[in-house]
Amino acid sequence: MMTWGVPHIDLPPLPGIAGLLAAHPATAGPLNSLAETLLRGPSPLTPAQRETIAAHVSRRNECTFCAETHGAVARHLAGGEVPAGPLLDALLAIAEKVRVDGRSVTAEDVARARAAGADDRAIHDTVLIAAAFSMFNRYVDGLNTLTPDDPAQYDRHARALAENGYLRAV
Amino acid sequence: MMTWGVPHIDLPPLPGIAGLLAAHPATAGPLNSLAETLLRGPSPLTPAQRETIAAHVSRRNECTFCAETHGAVARHLAGGEVPAGPLLDALLAIAEKVRVDGRSVTAEDVARARAAGADDRAIHDTVLIAAAFSMFNRYVDGLNTLTPDDPAQYDRHARALAENGYLRAV
Repeated sequence: MMTWGVPHIDLPPLPGIAGLLAAHPATAGPLNSLAETLLRGPSPLTPAQRETIAAHVSRRNECTFCAETHGAVARHLAGGEVPAGPLLDALLAIAEKVRVDGRSVTAEDVARARAAGADDRAIHDTVLIAAAFSMFNRYVDGLNTLTPDDPAQYDRHARALAENGYLRAV
Repeated sequence: MMTWGVPHIDLPPLPGIAGLLAAHPATAGPLNSLAETLLRGPSPLTPAQRETIAAHVSRRNECTFCAETHGAVARHLAGGEVPAGPLLDALLAIAEKVRVDGRSVTAEDVARARAAGADDRAIHDTVLIAAAFSMFNRYVDGLNTLTPDDPAQYDRHARALAENGYLRAV
């Protein structure tokens, strides 16, 4: 089952960003490469922590496809648990500010994250993940792509992304 | 001259996104590739029209570095003129909605752009450019990068981007 109407452009009947990546391969290359590097590449943050930041931004932007997908990927990667703790709390606070307006991040926000254990790279990756999902959410919703309403469909897709990442899944 | 304080992380003394791309090459690759594909690759929209959309989103997000840079690139590409017309007006209206919230784009917005000559690819590219600059603006401002206040510096940088694109300029 898919809900929420007809996409604004002609796309194959695939949910969320999948239809866009299939129909527009020239931009799919860099977009998949960015997701793989940011969410799976070297970082002081675990993939589960990074997917949790992605899911948080997507949920606050009310991008159902992205929020459900990345929330499920985070749970798969964390063995069913939801990642938590003071470091992640401080990084989610920065991500939330970036989501609204990058200029609202303060030196105090960054100092709180450093006190919880974040280094420069963790702060960089948090800001860029929040910024990138500010893009992915708008790409998915701005073209009114299909949003599945069956949780099992998200779970299957999330398992593939958790196991294979963003390059092989496409 | 650079203004607006100290970046939130250690970066080389380069303005705006240049410092981020130099310090974080793993993500610089896909980010430059996305900019080149979106702003210079095949599209029914001219590079000047696409840079105008990028500049509009950046200006509305008050990202001074991005707005000044891409505004100057658009003028270089258009031979000193500012691109304009009913098609660009309709696409800028879609871009503005994407900038605020992707879900706010309506079928009527898209129909207006089609009546002005937009095809699916033009609508796709407009939405993804607006979404991508929602990312670039937040990346640049969320880490409090350096913002030059000398117009000549933007003009030099913009000339290089207009002539060489986003892969050779780095």
